[in-house]
Amino acid sequence: MTRIVERGCFITFEGGEGTGKSTQIRLLADRLEQYGIEVFVTREPGGTPSGEAIRSLLVTGATDRWLPVTEALMHTAARAEHVKRFIEPALERGIWVLSDRFIDSSRAYQGIGQGLGVPLIDDLTRLAIGDFLPDLTFVLDLPVAAALPRAQTRPGNEDRYERMGHAFHERLRQAFLDIALGEPDRCRIIDAAPSIELVAERLWDETRQALLS
Amino acid sequence: MTRIVERGCFITFEGGEGTGKSTQIRLLADRLEQYGIEVFVTREPGGTPSGEAIRSLLVTGATDRWLPVTEALMHTAARAEHVKRFIEPALERGIWVLSDRFIDSSRAYQGIGQGLGVPLIDDLTRLAIGDFLPDLTFVLDLPVAAALPRAQTRPGNEDRYERMGHAFHERLRQAFLDIALGEPDRCRIIDAAPSIELVAERLWDETRQALLS
Repeated sequence: MTRIVERGCFITFEGGEGTGKSTQIRLLADRLEQYGIEVFVTREPGGTPSGEAIRSLLVTGATDRWLPVTEALMHTAARAEHVKRFIEPALERGIWVLSDRFIDSSRAYQGIGQGLGVPLIDDLTRLAIGDFLPDLTFVLDLPVAAALPRAQTRPGNEDRYERMGHAFHERLRQAFLDIALGEPDRCRIIDAAPSIELVAERLWDETRQALLS
Repeated sequence: MTRIVERGCFITFEGGEGTGKSTQIRLLADRLEQYGIEVFVTREPGGTPSGEAIRSLLVTGATDRWLPVTEALMHTAARAEHVKRFIEPALERGIWVLSDRFIDSSRAYQGIGQGLGVPLIDDLTRLAIGDFLPDLTFVLDLPVAAALPRAQTRPGNEDRYERMGHAFHERLRQAFLDIALGEPDRCRIIDAAPSIELVAERLWDETRQALLS
């Protein structure tokens, strides 16, 4: 007898550095698991062994190490591995996948922040993964003056993007807001200024309304 | 007073593993230098520090380490760095550039050999480097039965492509021939079976006729 497995949902967390994405992903994963849903938590760039190898080239070294178009191509390369070898197979088994960053980060960072334009990013994405999209995307929003110091106190050397300067990060914040406003069915803008508990509550409410009702 | 510098020429060497590309590039570079032309010799994937970092991910490890589309994206990423940071600036200074592999290798390996299709490769290339093309391309042709054993006796661990099997390499040989026949103005098919000296002579004749007359 074939058991019919309902496809899992794919939720992405977007926003600038230091907006609390990784904390909130863990809290939402816990809630979903308490609800009886199997959840995988992942991140971009990375998420697969090959993707992590590309990640290590992207997030370290001089800020001008890569041309913007190279960077977009490498993020897209890591994403192709991530979607086809990890995310899609998990969703097909009924597992939910929560990812720290996805296509909207490429649109914001390389498309708008680094000036390649969103259409070029979208063309690349289509060549790599077709029309695959998240079921729900949370854009965590926080003023750069509040977010960046939080990101810069993190340990480790994965700070290439953090070092790109205040004006770059302001452009980024606006880019994420514009992307979310352009796709209101998929995206929710979440004010990340309240306490961790209040933001977590808001994310759980939005998830239930969008995907569990 | 501004000195007008005549733009250098860009020549690429294509063909399967073990067809003698790197030997012939060195010999042609020597001839051009004797003729008074400054020459840079380079290779793909690689050619820049960032491109070499990508190369090390591509040419080592399991043959199924990357999905074909990922591989195409990473080759294109390395190529963007190569063209914009190395090849174009050299040509503008009047230097000639000879490259061991370029876009036709992506078309043959990922487009035809791995089944992505040439149009996808060409779309990616256009997004990355616009309509930049070599002035002259030599496709060195040799039966797989003769070429592959030569490639497999080379030292080192850069053998991921060599291990892809005989049928793959037969498909590749035909792909290079088809590509060359489709662009006869840019491409020359060179029988690589004669002696090194005879092949070198043929390449020098073709180069003079196409670019120095």
